[in-house]
Amino acid sequence: MSIGKYLLDALQKRGVNEIFGVPGDYILRFDKMIEQHSIRYINATRENTAGYMADAYARLHGLGVACITYGVGINITNALSQAFVESSPLVVISGSAASSDYSHEIKLHHLINQSKTLSGDKTQLDIFKYITAGQVVLDNPATATEQIDRILDLCLKVKKPVYIEIPRDMVDAALIAPKKIFYPTQEKSDAHALEEAMHEFEVILKTCHKPVIWVGHEIQRFQMQAALLAFAEKYRIPIVSSLLGKTTISEYHPLFVGVYQGEMSRPEVVEFVNNCDCLFMMGLMLTDVETGIFTAKLDQDLKVIASSDGIEIGHHHYKKVIFSDFIQRLAKSNFNVRFHHEYPASIDRDVPHFKPKSQTKTTTKFVFECIQHHLKRDHIIVADIGDSLFASADLILEQDSFLACASFGSLGFATPGSIGAQICRPQHRIIAIVGDGAFQMTSMELSTAVRYGLDPILIILNNHGYATERPIIDGAYNDIHDWNYAEIPKVINGGIGIKVGTEDELDNALKKALSQRGTFYLIEVELDKMDFSPAMLRFSSALKKSKE
Amino acid sequence: MSIGKYLLDALQKRGVNEIFGVPGDYILRFDKMIEQHSIRYINATRENTAGYMADAYARLHGLGVACITYGVGINITNALSQAFVESSPLVVISGSAASSDYSHEIKLHHLINQSKTLSGDKTQLDIFKYITAGQVVLDNPATATEQIDRILDLCLKVKKPVYIEIPRDMVDAALIAPKKIFYPTQEKSDAHALEEAMHEFEVILKTCHKPVIWVGHEIQRFQMQAALLAFAEKYRIPIVSSLLGKTTISEYHPLFVGVYQGEMSRPEVVEFVNNCDCLFMMGLMLTDVETGIFTAKLDQDLKVIASSDGIEIGHHHYKKVIFSDFIQRLAKSNFNVRFHHEYPASIDRDVPHFKPKSQTKTTTKFVFECIQHHLKRDHIIVADIGDSLFASADLILEQDSFLACASFGSLGFATPGSIGAQICRPQHRIIAIVGDGAFQMTSMELSTAVRYGLDPILIILNNHGYATERPIIDGAYNDIHDWNYAEIPKVINGGIGIKVGTEDELDNALKKALSQRGTFYLIEVELDKMDFSPAMLRFSSALKKSKE
Repeated sequence: MSIGKYLLDALQKRGVNEIFGVPGDYILRFDKMIEQHSIRYINATRENTAGYMADAYARLHGLGVACITYGVGINITNALSQAFVESSPLVVISGSAASSDYSHEIKLHHLINQSKTLSGDKTQLDIFKYITAGQVVLDNPATATEQIDRILDLCLKVKKPVYIEIPRDMVDAALIAPKKIFYPTQEKSDAHALEEAMHEFEVILKTCHKPVIWVGHEIQRFQMQAALLAFAEKYRIPIVSSLLGKTTISEYHPLFVGVYQGEMSRPEVVEFVNNCDCLFMMGLMLTDVETGIFTAKLDQDLKVIASSDGIEIGHHHYKKVIFSDFIQRLAKSNFNVRFHHEYPASIDRDVPHFKPKSQTKTTTKFVFECIQHHLKRDHIIVADIGDSLFASADLILEQDSFLACASFGSLGFATPGSIGAQICRPQHRIIAIVGDGAFQMTSMELSTAVRYGLDPILIILNNHGYATERPIIDGAYNDIHDWNYAEIPKVINGGIGIKVGTEDELDNALKKALSQRGTFYLIEVELDKMDFSPAMLRFSSALKKSKE
Repeated sequence: MSIGKYLLDALQKRGVNEIFGVPGDYILRFDKMIEQHSIRYINATRENTAGYMADAYARLHGLGVACITYGVGINITNALSQAFVESSPLVVISGSAASSDYSHEIKLHHLINQSKTLSGDKTQLDIFKYITAGQVVLDNPATATEQIDRILDLCLKVKKPVYIEIPRDMVDAALIAPKKIFYPTQEKSDAHALEEAMHEFEVILKTCHKPVIWVGHEIQRFQMQAALLAFAEKYRIPIVSSLLGKTTISEYHPLFVGVYQGEMSRPEVVEFVNNCDCLFMMGLMLTDVETGIFTAKLDQDLKVIASSDGIEIGHHHYKKVIFSDFIQRLAKSNFNVRFHHEYPASIDRDVPHFKPKSQTKTTTKFVFECIQHHLKRDHIIVADIGDSLFASADLILEQDSFLACASFGSLGFATPGSIGAQICRPQHRIIAIVGDGAFQMTSMELSTAVRYGLDPILIILNNHGYATERPIIDGAYNDIHDWNYAEIPKVINGGIGIKVGTEDELDNALKKALSQRGTFYLIEVELDKMDFSPAMLRFSSALKKSKE
């Protein structure tokens, strides 16, 4: 058994069926090994989009892998940063030079800093230390198995990306009788601390009258969705979600109220949260955007914060209580409490009568009404940054059917993200919503959709610029050169492009796209430069409010 | 005077007329300031290609600038690594959060690591430390002017990229009476050491019979071209160049022999260097590729190595002699030596009779014959990695008319590089030579050529895969999904695309492209999957030889 084979088997054992990559000479041997393995290799057009695809796959699947060559593979840095910030369990595997390559005392191509020739180039590793939770170099056949198991388990445990470097001559190296390495054993919650926290929680639950659970992405990442829901249903506690955590809980669930982002939220959600007297913040990462530019109400007297950073009740912390243990215990608790609130559950929302008009130019608002109208429960939405994201907050979606890099906020995720999602969920239909600025960054990864016969539907919101930036400080730099987006299928030999301008054109295009599988659709929607969704207008208004 | 204005003026004073960038909220205020300044802002479609454009501009112009927003702007990492490895004076300016943004104790979008909230997020700075020669954060109006002058002078001095971070609230901050900061004064050569080195050099020059100068890119970067040539002409010493240093000296110069890369070189160049008894290695960075996979002859008894790392004669070093001082002194020396060698100067090369045939499918070999045939002295070639680069080595070109990232070897430089070069040299015609794999990585930056009315000519060598990798370890991962490259102009609303298959089709397309200015041309050349240039075949053979 070789190091490379052990690594592939270890990934497969943890559920990985596909690896996204760009070949290069330091990784070719491993690429060949993947080709000979039952894990499928998916070619990306460049490393950063390979990273985005693997990130989307990781979010849906629990583990994703991108495979790059050394040095120039550092092109993946942006995708890796995003996975780090938003807790996506992404494994990056990079080939590197063999130790014998250094024997010439001459620099090697692709390497970044070779002055310290004793240990070879460590720059990529050094840089990735800032954006991964762990790193290993598989340069020792006696420790490789332990290193591999440990780093993959770390990735699964902390839900953050990890980095595995494999020198090209180590791929085929035979494992030698593994030296046992001892690592700290899996940490556990302190039983007494957990009891105390539960007791406190019970008191809070019995004190408050109108509690709300604000659920974040970590509940999804740590697969605590069923537990969280069991807890909420047991006591009938309504739920709002963060934007990054959207669809952690099905938005059709009667307890679900809406996405809460301070004053950016729909008015009824704002009112609901403002009226609550107790906030359970579960697996949240609060940011300026998630708090509606600091307009979220966070000053409730009763508050519990549970996340991978620890458990916080009132003004004290439980350092020895683990997030998942805490949520699991809540699911199994029996506190003899039951709330009977009135709440504006999402499904009761006032859905406008849908009647597309033939002479009416589309607006962003209409685009989302149209998507909502045609949406089925097995559709997955991948939203890019800008109004694509803000307006998507208002869509009503099934559990695990929304992907967006809502916190890091890097433009260009949705196109490759929709492809990674489609690879992961071939039975589902993926709908990507992308602004023109974001689309121009990664558009041509659609080539990969054609190559592998995938059929995401891309809705390009062409408002001719970086629209989110216009209300801040506008200038010609916010203008984007216009493309005929719908012509892209002709370039990449597949897919169908449609440009629409009116409501009924959009409606027909979307109906057509949804009725046909096996080919991707790109629907370019012509919009006015200053056309914004209601959500985006609420964002501007929140921004204004925060500056007052 | 504000910090932002001072920075722009300082850049302009050092010759910068254009800044390449992607807007984003942390940098918007500065983008607006550029718009109001006489420096022109060039919008890129994404940060990494902004970096490539600015890198090409920097190599031709002596200083280039890319401007990004915080966090997601880390997308520029690959371009920055390339500039670092290949010594391109690239300034990266990034906006960042204002200190007041941190006052909420809530994380901010785009930021990577906000746990150390006292000083804000430093991740981008920490990462860029590995791939820049210097970094400053302009967060103090009392020190900003000194910091700006110092960092830009450092960039110009060491010819490596630098990083400038400007918090968004500091752009408009008024400079306050600058506190004088004292930095080490400009280092100088030790006069005695320089004398001794010169004396040694003279002895070597008078001892040897067949010296050769092997010139590298640093002679171009440090603007030592005239001095190097004065030295070579004075003593009639023939010159070979590295691939990264190609066109540091005009290849029409009678002393120029050819590009030397060990056994990868043309046979007459190999023979010439193998027969020399003294090697002057000037501003070189030796790599595996530059040495023809370690096949270069480096064991001459007489050898002088001069580079930014120092001066080395025989087996000893002169630590206190500065590279440029050394070359300047050689230019002014008068050693009473004159060599009278026979050498196969490039212009005497056997140029095949050029007669394109109508029924004959093009080969890579023919493509380069065709380019050479039509090449004028004011054309600039930008070569991407792979056979595009290897085969370009054999083209005969004027001084400063070749760009390629020959050492870092990142795919995708040539397309944005040709645009950056065109912005810098509007009068020249730029010809980019790009393989299909490289082109797919950055193709759509051609949008920027349309936006600014630029007219590079792109020759896409479509051999349907990562051809350089096929002879190493081939597999389906080396295949590339086929595009109709010539259809791209229809997507981006400009440019002319032509697909050619035969010799005369290529000849006609290139003639047509060269006869028309004001629009870019994209010429897709259909090639066989396993068709290689003579240079590429020499590379494979050298690779084989090195493994024997």
